[in-house]
Amino acid sequence: MKFKLINKSVFARRSELEFKRGTIQAPAFMPVGTNGTVKGMTVEDLESTNSEIILGNTFHLMLRPGDETIRDLGGLHKFSNWNRPILTDSGGFQVWSLGDLVKITEEGVKFSSPYDGKKIFMTPEDSMKIQENLGSDIVMAFDECTDYPSTYQQAKQSMELSMRWAKRCKEFHKSDSALFGIVQGGMYKDLREESLKQLIKIDFDGIALGGLSVGESKSEKTAILEHMSDKLPEDKPRYLMGVGTPEDIVEAVRYGIDMFDCVLPTRNARNGQLFTSEGVINIRNAEFKNSDDPIDKNCNSKVSQNYSRAYLNHLHRTNEMLGSMLATYHNIYYYQSLMKDIRNSITNNIFAKFIKDFYNSRNLDMPDGPI
Amino acid sequence: MKFKLINKSVFARRSELEFKRGTIQAPAFMPVGTNGTVKGMTVEDLESTNSEIILGNTFHLMLRPGDETIRDLGGLHKFSNWNRPILTDSGGFQVWSLGDLVKITEEGVKFSSPYDGKKIFMTPEDSMKIQENLGSDIVMAFDECTDYPSTYQQAKQSMELSMRWAKRCKEFHKSDSALFGIVQGGMYKDLREESLKQLIKIDFDGIALGGLSVGESKSEKTAILEHMSDKLPEDKPRYLMGVGTPEDIVEAVRYGIDMFDCVLPTRNARNGQLFTSEGVINIRNAEFKNSDDPIDKNCNSKVSQNYSRAYLNHLHRTNEMLGSMLATYHNIYYYQSLMKDIRNSITNNIFAKFIKDFYNSRNLDMPDGPI
Repeated sequence: MKFKLINKSVFARRSELEFKRGTIQAPAFMPVGTNGTVKGMTVEDLESTNSEIILGNTFHLMLRPGDETIRDLGGLHKFSNWNRPILTDSGGFQVWSLGDLVKITEEGVKFSSPYDGKKIFMTPEDSMKIQENLGSDIVMAFDECTDYPSTYQQAKQSMELSMRWAKRCKEFHKSDSALFGIVQGGMYKDLREESLKQLIKIDFDGIALGGLSVGESKSEKTAILEHMSDKLPEDKPRYLMGVGTPEDIVEAVRYGIDMFDCVLPTRNARNGQLFTSEGVINIRNAEFKNSDDPIDKNCNSKVSQNYSRAYLNHLHRTNEMLGSMLATYHNIYYYQSLMKDIRNSITNNIFAKFIKDFYNSRNLDMPDGPI
Repeated sequence: MKFKLINKSVFARRSELEFKRGTIQAPAFMPVGTNGTVKGMTVEDLESTNSEIILGNTFHLMLRPGDETIRDLGGLHKFSNWNRPILTDSGGFQVWSLGDLVKITEEGVKFSSPYDGKKIFMTPEDSMKIQENLGSDIVMAFDECTDYPSTYQQAKQSMELSMRWAKRCKEFHKSDSALFGIVQGGMYKDLREESLKQLIKIDFDGIALGGLSVGESKSEKTAILEHMSDKLPEDKPRYLMGVGTPEDIVEAVRYGIDMFDCVLPTRNARNGQLFTSEGVINIRNAEFKNSDDPIDKNCNSKVSQNYSRAYLNHLHRTNEMLGSMLATYHNIYYYQSLMKDIRNSITNNIFAKFIKDFYNSRNLDMPDGPI
């Protein structure tokens, strides 16, 4: 992976990540393809929304169909027919999500498969091997997501374990994929700082911020982003994991984040929640039953161009698959258009204006922050 | 509508139906778009499978979102963004499917909406009006589907009611859409013949055979097709409603049928049943878990070209939407390719060879019949 910083606006960055499978323009949004598919979208659809990289879930794919099965079939790209870059998470977050069902030791984690109850023991080295089997372009270090809330001692111990695991990941990782480390430390600034120092020392290709969409308040999250903004290395991509709403993304870009992933646009689409330039609408609402208006009059997606709110309302009310398909397409298109607007504004040194317009058009107050 | 007979092979016909929204090459297969969408397919997908006409269900659309809603939104084509021809059924078959919940009188049918229990009375004139509101290119006469089995007297009374309704439909129908009449008469050849005579007298634009996928045996169906094959008017399109498997379609073409619709390729796709040139496979089966083979090595669909059986197996086992989407695309592509092969063979006077090859490649015995 080659990383190139193109322009800056205070902390906000316009950059490029170059891989053998294609170049990613950043700030970038990565649609989530949990089971080797972004739910409800073909790869042609994804490409036409200008998605340049997607995320695959190690936890899900190692269980079904199995990472060795995927390896034997030529890797996740060939398996899913997605030929642009793929980032795989480490599986750590999903294991953590199992809660009390997981036993964590220095060596690794022990849990039962939610599909067949089979006992599984997974180490940082296993995660590296699995992600290599999948053929990932960006491999994530295996970490423990720190609980929220947690005491200083809990957060410290958890972070330190993740850093020891990070070192083991780096030592085991041999493939030519990029390897990103993950900053932990809960809501404690000094722990975050210490975590970052250790990751820089281990020398990862990129730095992710983990444990920041786990129940904390907006102001807690912003405090961490702000604290890290002038400490993250300039010459490496920065990835805020699992975030978030359009507002969350705009705010994080202000603090220098380059990469994002989130299930929000896809999951909400299936529930009828559509992102528009004037805010979120729920297309199932009765008010749209007879509406000949497009989903978003300011949007160029094929969905906004070709279908009425009434048609989407009808498809969602009759539980037609096409309702989820078109809504997902629209939301991913919306997110990718937002990222493009963000990128263009940084390139053209008008990011400050972009932020003001973004909040104005949604009738929202602009939070304080670098501009 | 303009109908043009291009070539014949014994009874089999190669023809064209010309509409203001496009020309249909026949024998033609019409994918079923019950709720204003062919389940799991975008209109771009449908077009790329070479589908030239789709079917819409009057019964479903009149209830949700309502035919007047669709009319006010510009008609079913604009509503669904499908700009090629649409055939709408009359609603009669779906009402009949409600069984004992329906009360049938000379005037029309009375039933309760399965969605909200609302009492609905529907006459042949209502059906014409609803199909006009939808903006259909081919309107079907409102009929009563004759029960199977039924006595001669029952079939006769039912057929005669349908013929009186057919006359009322013709008298009421004023739009410039084509209007097709439906032959009934159960399994009784003389009743079928009598029904056809009356329809010819009323002078419809096309003739459909109804009540032939309602539980009867293959030989009973073939007997009716054979009996009608030399009696159906040469200068009008012939449509066999609700049929069927690839074998059913090939057989019906032998007896002179031009048009088909069936939920089989779409419904079966969602259950993992895929049509191939070597027969049907269920992609959920464990044998496909590691199979790098394409769905059908003799198929040019984007699904066969780009995805392995293992990937489809994985998508279906994880209940991913894309599993249904790709399977549906494949099956519709398979059906449309079959229709194309049938058409080409009739055009090139090699339909007899086509039929033999069709049965040979599937290891099936070829039924007796015109060749």
